[in-house]
Amino acid sequence: MLALAWEPIVDLALAEDLSSGDLTTEACIAPDARAVAHAVARGPMVACGADVFARVFAKIDPHVSFEAHVAEAAGVEWGARLWTVRGRARSLLMGERTALNFVQRMCGIATVAREYVSKLPQGSRTRITDTRKTTPGLRALERYAVRCGGAHNHRDNLGSAVLIKDNHVVAAGSIAAAIDRAREGSPHTTKIECEVDTLEQLDEAIAAGADSVLLDNMDTATIQEAVARARGRVVLEASGGVTLARVRELAETGVDAISVGALTHSAPAADIGLDFETK
Amino acid sequence: MLALAWEPIVDLALAEDLSSGDLTTEACIAPDARAVAHAVARGPMVACGADVFARVFAKIDPHVSFEAHVAEAAGVEWGARLWTVRGRARSLLMGERTALNFVQRMCGIATVAREYVSKLPQGSRTRITDTRKTTPGLRALERYAVRCGGAHNHRDNLGSAVLIKDNHVVAAGSIAAAIDRAREGSPHTTKIECEVDTLEQLDEAIAAGADSVLLDNMDTATIQEAVARARGRVVLEASGGVTLARVRELAETGVDAISVGALTHSAPAADIGLDFETK
Amino acid sequence: MLALAWEPIVDLALAEDLSSGDLTTEACIAPDARAVAHAVARGPMVACGADVFARVFAKIDPHVSFEAHVAEAAGVEWGARLWTVRGRARSLLMGERTALNFVQRMCGIATVAREYVSKLPQGSRTRITDTRKTTPGLRALERYAVRCGGAHNHRDNLGSAVLIKDNHVVAAGSIAAAIDRAREGSPHTTKIECEVDTLEQLDEAIAAGADSVLLDNMDTATIQEAVARARGRVVLEASGGVTLARVRELAETGVDAISVGALTHSAPAADIGLDFETK
Amino acid sequence: MLALAWEPIVDLALAEDLSSGDLTTEACIAPDARAVAHAVARGPMVACGADVFARVFAKIDPHVSFEAHVAEAAGVEWGARLWTVRGRARSLLMGERTALNFVQRMCGIATVAREYVSKLPQGSRTRITDTRKTTPGLRALERYAVRCGGAHNHRDNLGSAVLIKDNHVVAAGSIAAAIDRAREGSPHTTKIECEVDTLEQLDEAIAAGADSVLLDNMDTATIQEAVARARGRVVLEASGGVTLARVRELAETGVDAISVGALTHSAPAADIGLDFETK
Amino acid sequence: MLALAWEPIVDLALAEDLSSGDLTTEACIAPDARAVAHAVARGPMVACGADVFARVFAKIDPHVSFEAHVAEAAGVEWGARLWTVRGRARSLLMGERTALNFVQRMCGIATVAREYVSKLPQGSRTRITDTRKTTPGLRALERYAVRCGGAHNHRDNLGSAVLIKDNHVVAAGSIAAAIDRAREGSPHTTKIECEVDTLEQLDEAIAAGADSVLLDNMDTATIQEAVARARGRVVLEASGGVTLARVRELAETGVDAISVGALTHSAPAADIGLDFETK
Amino acid sequence: MLALAWEPIVDLALAEDLSSGDLTTEACIAPDARAVAHAVARGPMVACGADVFARVFAKIDPHVSFEAHVAEAAGVEWGARLWTVRGRARSLLMGERTALNFVQRMCGIATVAREYVSKLPQGSRTRITDTRKTTPGLRALERYAVRCGGAHNHRDNLGSAVLIKDNHVVAAGSIAAAIDRAREGSPHTTKIECEVDTLEQLDEAIAAGADSVLLDNMDTATIQEAVARARGRVVLEASGGVTLARVRELAETGVDAISVGALTHSAPAADIGLDFETK
Repeated sequence: MLALAWEPIVDLALAEDLSSGDLTTEACIAPDARAVAHAVARGPMVACGADVFARVFAKIDPHVSFEAHVAEAAGVEWGARLWTVRGRARSLLMGERTALNFVQRMCGIATVAREYVSKLPQGSRTRITDTRKTTPGLRALERYAVRCGGAHNHRDNLGSAVLIKDNHVVAAGSIAAAIDRAREGSPHTTKIECEVDTLEQLDEAIAAGADSVLLDNMDTATIQEAVARARGRVVLEASGGVTLARVRELAETGVDAISVGALTHSAPAADIGLDFETK
Repeated sequence: MLALAWEPIVDLALAEDLSSGDLTTEACIAPDARAVAHAVARGPMVACGADVFARVFAKIDPHVSFEAHVAEAAGVEWGARLWTVRGRARSLLMGERTALNFVQRMCGIATVAREYVSKLPQGSRTRITDTRKTTPGLRALERYAVRCGGAHNHRDNLGSAVLIKDNHVVAAGSIAAAIDRAREGSPHTTKIECEVDTLEQLDEAIAAGADSVLLDNMDTATIQEAVARARGRVVLEASGGVTLARVRELAETGVDAISVGALTHSAPAADIGLDFETK
Repeated sequence: MLALAWEPIVDLALAEDLSSGDLTTEACIAPDARAVAHAVARGPMVACGADVFARVFAKIDPHVSFEAHVAEAAGVEWGARLWTVRGRARSLLMGERTALNFVQRMCGIATVAREYVSKLPQGSRTRITDTRKTTPGLRALERYAVRCGGAHNHRDNLGSAVLIKDNHVVAAGSIAAAIDRAREGSPHTTKIECEVDTLEQLDEAIAAGADSVLLDNMDTATIQEAVARARGRVVLEASGGVTLARVRELAETGVDAISVGALTHSAPAADIGLDFETK
Repeated sequence: MLALAWEPIVDLALAEDLSSGDLTTEACIAPDARAVAHAVARGPMVACGADVFARVFAKIDPHVSFEAHVAEAAGVEWGARLWTVRGRARSLLMGERTALNFVQRMCGIATVAREYVSKLPQGSRTRITDTRKTTPGLRALERYAVRCGGAHNHRDNLGSAVLIKDNHVVAAGSIAAAIDRAREGSPHTTKIECEVDTLEQLDEAIAAGADSVLLDNMDTATIQEAVARARGRVVLEASGGVTLARVRELAETGVDAISVGALTHSAPAADIGLDFETK
Repeated sequence: MLALAWEPIVDLALAEDLSSGDLTTEACIAPDARAVAHAVARGPMVACGADVFARVFAKIDPHVSFEAHVAEAAGVEWGARLWTVRGRARSLLMGERTALNFVQRMCGIATVAREYVSKLPQGSRTRITDTRKTTPGLRALERYAVRCGGAHNHRDNLGSAVLIKDNHVVAAGSIAAAIDRAREGSPHTTKIECEVDTLEQLDEAIAAGADSVLLDNMDTATIQEAVARARGRVVLEASGGVTLARVRELAETGVDAISVGALTHSAPAADIGLDFETK
Repeated sequence: MLALAWEPIVDLALAEDLSSGDLTTEACIAPDARAVAHAVARGPMVACGADVFARVFAKIDPHVSFEAHVAEAAGVEWGARLWTVRGRARSLLMGERTALNFVQRMCGIATVAREYVSKLPQGSRTRITDTRKTTPGLRALERYAVRCGGAHNHRDNLGSAVLIKDNHVVAAGSIAAAIDRAREGSPHTTKIECEVDTLEQLDEAIAAGADSVLLDNMDTATIQEAVARARGRVVLEASGGVTLARVRELAETGVDAISVGALTHSAPAADIGLDFETK
């Protein structure tokens, strides 16, 4: 994960918390006191965000050293020691909250993603994917967390793939016209996905040369029929109202991808503590 | 809510989604097509974020006009129309996801906050407060959402109040020493709060002149006793392991504030749709 | 063309030229003197960049008004009046060079692009495309200029499509392995293009499911054979050593796209003057 | 060349290409794979931009090491190895295009500049200079490239010297009045140059105390006469319609400087490849 | 003093002075020449700003080394060597003015602050404090300088404490109403200070539960009376028209704090030279 | 004065004071309350900074209107009304301190500058100039204030003119060598000033073709002699230890410029109040 894509949000977060200093730490902790702090999982979770955790402290103080105890994307149990930072006690205390705010969110998303993936039938080729329903400013980090959880990403942003929705179809006049316009207006390296509500629209999208089709809010039987009609010709994505409970039956239809907004917009924070050893 | 405190995160969010343009919209929607889009609640919620919603579209296109149908902080039912934007169809489609990503999070937090507040006994003077466990980059917006939900804010950042925790006490040698150092090192306009685990520590903090005391992870009976010992001399805050179910009994102890990290770190997004009228 | 994608480079350009003010204009021109300035083509060209031209002056002085005399992407002859700005004479003189530096480059690229497109046989479905060999900081503007010239864009950046090159193949072990890894690692909305040097590699790429294939530095006869083998199954792009003189013969092979780095890395500036009327 | 003057454009360029990551490289190249890459001249050129080349990779990955094989501003032949970077293969592949986009432009400008300088008569004291017709955002780098080519810079921006043009003269009432106002309004450390179209204007500018005079679009005979009138009293610059073919005859007039916009606005990119050794 | 709070102003200052390079130094000093430069006090002063001094040079050239000869906040005499930087002569010359502009201001403020503090009676518990009348962009540095001088800070900004002034009282209807609203609208960790002009207002503020009271422009006798009325119940701050000459008599009233805008808005720069040893 | 040169420092200053909101104003002032506020001189001064004053409020709230009662650079007496802002009471209260911090500094500098200028003999052609000893981040504003006071600017930054100092001379080997190198390395539009300590050095600098010479810390008789030797051939600047009392005698030597660091580094803030009318 390339740091330049997420350093702006780290800078913004540090400015929020530290632009007026840390009154308590500056008053109570000697400048030369040193400490060690361990990030510890307070529940089972998928570990995610080591680089961000390390960078928060490094931005405060380049002399803080960092050590990881688990691999990125590893599943860990309650009590697992994830990462350790060592250095000036002031620097560790100043970065604690900001670092945790990042990784609790990232581990939370990775954990939810893995839960969804675990519901797929053994050997399934269906993907669980995220959406663009990410936290403002955190998209790169949240997409990374989704991958750590074993799920896949959807398009990154409005310029990285075409996704024709109902308003685009209405404006273009028809699904076929919208796909033609999109193909003409996009690089030849861009895939064109089209959202459909009915099997008739699916047929129209396939005929017009869509690369993939988003089946919006369809029941399982209809998705099954869509797979039968389309397989081998377009990639199919099921979307809308996906719950953990429904993942297995959706995947069993043979759909290629199931997109789940809740991976990013509603994942609860993972519980991680920072335990200090003072020396 | 002063825009200059949250414009950086709006800029960052727009850059994430739109820095490569919107391939679909530019291909399918005529530059001069106009549209109207209504933000609609897809469930009961507290309305929050009108200014941010409007600003996202205004940053894309200063000619988009905005209208609010409900007051900030109003509780609304399923189906309520919250806000309307009017202008170039391209501009509305380009801003849709970013605008919703902001307000779904803000309404989600405001809604959870109000739920906690609703558990307080009639006439209670106890506050529900947030913590610094906010989303990186969104602190100003999330604190605002907490207020819209009827809860209160805790300190904004490490420079706006003193909060002495166990590591500070250990480093200073005692609670009294930590409070003395903090008082000497801080402006006379700064309050000093001290976290305690026991009633003995509470007594020590009061004797040393703390302005407020955070009772960390105490059971209700101990908190009750703390209130009895302290009332009138310091502000008391209960913290740690607070659930909706426990709010009432905590408040009935007469504690001044109950802080809840989950208000911001784990509130699920509110479900809001953007319904387009094309003309 | 969404302004937020190119405002940073406008700000940077204005800072370069004006961060120490304009000694001459401030000394010689009265603050309230008004003027009109017309951008005039000093040769035949494709008009491109009206929004950028206007924005440069608006950043200096929001009261400068702007008028376009030709449509974006229109071909114009020597002497054509392109755009007019009106306002404080100081503001027009201060913005002159920066505004021209942008549009001379944009019109230059659009003009070269149109020249390449004009060499395509009548009715050809082959595209001329740009590459990522753009001027640092100006990618969005230069890609737009390419489109104004009637050519098409290639992928925007390293995250918007997969393009497997020789080093990737070597690292993955084979073309097939590289394509498999890329498919697994990318969103289902991402196209996979693979660069090949031989027809055998082309076959391998098609068999592995590439969406498009870049034929690197092949002679025309080989490209012809590639088209025969591949048509209907993958998109084919010819690349490397493309000159104006060779466009027609390449297009006649039926290749889908011809990419030309020179569109952006070596287009000479179009000659545009700014004629002042002082009043 | 001080890095802080050009780091903003390096950041902008990296954001353009890498803000969504590098899908291909992340999928195909193992995180710990290492590589060596050599920048090689694919034609004769003036080497220019080693610091920028190195910095692009260092911004992606501070552990990439850099080695230069030629001195800045050295002339090299086809096939010359210019610079080598060593480190993680991913980092080298991610930075390749951005690094080359910078140095191809810089070497291109340095090469053109040297070509102009080579046309000066043996022992000539005439300077070839650039203008403010630089690429937006790249002024510091392009001015440096001009110097590497052996040419000189003109004023950096509108605040670093006075250059009185026709509109300033009209507004001030006369050349003399414009020069007086400029002298009064500028630091005593600022030179005043005045653009003239005729020898009469030249006389007026000299009489008014101009430090240098720009002879705009004059034929060679007139320039010769201008030199005769002015030598020893002001610096003379010939400008407008300067081609390679005309440099010698212009220099032989004894004019002090010849400014050439084409050095920066239309220099074709130098052809530089990046050859990878994978290990 | 956390660097991230003041790096933006260092960047801005360097851009002001160096964004067009250093013509003199680049022309006259060989790139590999090395030098040593000593910051020397040209008068008695309080040393302040070592980190900022070092950082200015480090931003220009990370290989410049730094050494401090005196502790921060130490009082020094004429001729004292404060700090030494070693490295490339070019880097030292380029950073000289910017580094001195920072530390001359910081030492100047620290020196004035110490002068005020020195006027307090032996053993006094009264504080001298700054105000928000700081130089735009330099607040963090100037507040730090105040502390180095032995004085204290007032609230950092409009969000770090409540300070009710006359306009707020008028708008709220009364002092009591303003204090009630402020208490309700602020975190429980926020102190509420109220400005008063009369002893009656002081009584009202105390009764309403103010944490501290600012006595605005009162004569010494009135302040004495205020202290008598208030001691033990609120913190009292004297403000307005405070001169060095009046500090002692004000402190003898027993007031808790005396705020002095002149500490930051009008402190003359300390005289510091940078003496070069060239080797 | 072009706003883009000073908007960054306005943004920084507003962020310092308002990034956590304004607790007092938000609690006490109704959102729709309106007010009028008048900036009033609390002493004689030179008015300076109307644009900055207006911009601070406009950044907080674009609906605040602004009116100037005096011309920029006008001298005013105690009690003069300078500027008025009208709009939401909250916006005026939030901007008050930041706006005043700017203009008190600017008026202070303009006032001191005028005082120095007033000491020049009647009809003198000698200039009072500033130096680069400006407040970090405020250079453009402080140079403007110097001009409002009737004084002149020195070079803006290290790239806008050459100023050869002792270290440059030592490194180059001699004054003549330093001047030659500087001339070769600088644009022909750049003036070359050389600092000298003795009349012999002055002769050497003139002989080498310096455009101006800085006479460093010379006594008045020596300056007189320097003027006699140099007049008509170079511009002469007296520098070092200039006090108000010495201006007249220095100017009477006929020196062209007298530079005074104290104009910017030690000017006391002008006293300006903001008087509110609430309606």
